[in-house]
Amino acid sequence: MKVAVLGFGTVGVGVYEMLRNARCLEAGPVLVRPGKDDAPFKVTSIEQIAEDPSVDAVAEVMGGIEPAFTYGAAVLRAGKHFVTSNKALVAAKGIELNAIARENGAAFLFSAACGGGVPFLHNLSIARETDEILSMGGILNGTTNYMLDAMQRLGLDYEDALKDAQRLGYAEADPTADVSGLDALRKIMLACAVAYDKLPAEGLLHEGIESITAADVAHFQARGYTCRLLAKGSRAGDSVSAYVEPVLLRAGAPECAVLENYNMASYLGQCSGSIVLMGQGAGRYPTASAVVRDLTCIQRGKKYMLEPGCAHTDADNSQVKHAYYVRLPAELAGELPAESAELDGDVVRMITKPISVSQMHFTAARVRSAEASIFFAAIGG
Amino acid sequence: MKVAVLGFGTVGVGVYEMLRNARCLEAGPVLVRPGKDDAPFKVTSIEQIAEDPSVDAVAEVMGGIEPAFTYGAAVLRAGKHFVTSNKALVAAKGIELNAIARENGAAFLFSAACGGGVPFLHNLSIARETDEILSMGGILNGTTNYMLDAMQRLGLDYEDALKDAQRLGYAEADPTADVSGLDALRKIMLACAVAYDKLPAEGLLHEGIESITAADVAHFQARGYTCRLLAKGSRAGDSVSAYVEPVLLRAGAPECAVLENYNMASYLGQCSGSIVLMGQGAGRYPTASAVVRDLTCIQRGKKYMLEPGCAHTDADNSQVKHAYYVRLPAELAGELPAESAELDGDVVRMITKPISVSQMHFTAARVRSAEASIFFAAIGG
Repeated sequence: MKVAVLGFGTVGVGVYEMLRNARCLEAGPVLVRPGKDDAPFKVTSIEQIAEDPSVDAVAEVMGGIEPAFTYGAAVLRAGKHFVTSNKALVAAKGIELNAIARENGAAFLFSAACGGGVPFLHNLSIARETDEILSMGGILNGTTNYMLDAMQRLGLDYEDALKDAQRLGYAEADPTADVSGLDALRKIMLACAVAYDKLPAEGLLHEGIESITAADVAHFQARGYTCRLLAKGSRAGDSVSAYVEPVLLRAGAPECAVLENYNMASYLGQCSGSIVLMGQGAGRYPTASAVVRDLTCIQRGKKYMLEPGCAHTDADNSQVKHAYYVRLPAELAGELPAESAELDGDVVRMITKPISVSQMHFTAARVRSAEASIFFAAIGG
Repeated sequence: MKVAVLGFGTVGVGVYEMLRNARCLEAGPVLVRPGKDDAPFKVTSIEQIAEDPSVDAVAEVMGGIEPAFTYGAAVLRAGKHFVTSNKALVAAKGIELNAIARENGAAFLFSAACGGGVPFLHNLSIARETDEILSMGGILNGTTNYMLDAMQRLGLDYEDALKDAQRLGYAEADPTADVSGLDALRKIMLACAVAYDKLPAEGLLHEGIESITAADVAHFQARGYTCRLLAKGSRAGDSVSAYVEPVLLRAGAPECAVLENYNMASYLGQCSGSIVLMGQGAGRYPTASAVVRDLTCIQRGKKYMLEPGCAHTDADNSQVKHAYYVRLPAELAGELPAESAELDGDVVRMITKPISVSQMHFTAARVRSAEASIFFAAIGG
């Protein structure tokens, strides 16, 4: 199977090298920007790939929704299999791409878009065929895990943790998508689509790590907790629940063993029980290995991760409830039902009674709209 | 796809129920012992399955090498796909069954035979297509993990931990295959066959947990270690290294988060990096879910986990070296090169200099042949 590659950045180079070394796959042309075509295998127009009859499959690793969507649609319409590591693309256009793929008998897989090297979506898509997926979740963003780990194990403050992550290439110059939780949210959206045939669009909630301070860390560490940014998805009646938020975990929880920029993803099957997968969530070769794994699966006959009936839906995060650890200005303590609270200067640190995910996130938004600072984290089970 | 089931014990009932509930699979006849055919779907002779043209695939969950091998060969020769959870069968006869399957165009998968519900062999078989598997291993036996966990977290002694495991159905009346490490060894043998095309036969080493005492646990717990029984496999020149032994791990190692009868399996890929999978290694529905997952994969076009060239080989465990924690009679302390040692009554507890796995296991065998008692555990990384 000859595979063209769209994009020749960090992951693209890795995919190309793995294709060159694979026994059963062949490297085809690589799409680069005009002026970057400094070798014979590089081409600059998508037509050179879509119209090349020797190309069987296309791996997209450019990122961004456009022109990735236009290119993906073009090669699928030409009957070529399409695999991608692009979570923004699949979160926005996955249902459309899946329909185009099925109309044209071409495969569409995207397991590299969630968890990097961790084969989460791949296993989820098989499990859901014969098992009921009760819930899913995990540490799906390596940048924020690296930062939280550095703050907690090395005692760094937020700014230094971010600078370290950027220096090591774990965070981008603009880290917003990572630190806001949006990146992890897109990944759990894809998991919902795979497990439940519902790709949530509206009603999603994501709290990142931008509000955490060294004082917060010191406070909950003294009480035996470790903080991780977790994405969670589950059924909620006819809809799905899907959200991202910091969670405080007791020592010994498997998530606490996830250090640096590693990812951990899990699903709870009615029959299988809890299945946990851990590995590198980003990086050249881990992500490339996931892209190439999808190509191997296509060779073995697997074509889709999304059912034909997969549709957009609104998420419903009003049914899942937890207790939360919350730090907010003392004068706003009445915004939330406290189980216990202690005054720390002019802020209150409280443990709430169990409240819904949506109540917590909406309260935080209201507090912030009043220009006040708030940090919250669910108390993990 | 209509699936017959061989065996109607714990796992067989689970497989049958999952087949009845699956959207894309159909439950066929179930083979039971004569006299146990108390329902129309139960049959008592393998011919009723091998000669039934409506049966597409057969799931074997009886255990034992015979008659499982004869039955498996018969249905494969009849062109029916064959999946099994039987590690003893695949360790002894996997290469033969794979050849018969390929001659007859039928599929042969056995991911339930290693790790129960944990999809380890499945992912390993895909990864090895395009990545170099540098090493593999993990906690592959739930019985011994339950016992070690009970001894360490609950302070039970060996006999009480075993009784608890038996009471909960985690250990069989004769627990030898589990506590000796043989069960875990068979599983890592299968992983070597999948990853390296070599099914090791001679030269394998397995140390179980039969020699561990509450005093050993107290000693290494006081030094911050947790003990797990780990299976390990890797390339060793033209051969493979494959062995099972207790390992002492520092708090925070992912293996320490594996509690009760859970399993954890991992592989280190040249490109993917470390991929870790965790879940229930045994039990009705977890194991059944792995059997049914293999059937789903067959429907999607996957047919084999073993290459045609997979062959038996002798294992070579002389190249891997660790330091070991060893407790043995004081007068035998000279048997091993000590890095440090302390006298504890009439025994010595030592940390050895790095020595090969084979030197450690052969020394233990020599000590035991002299009727003396010894416990050892590798110092984990």
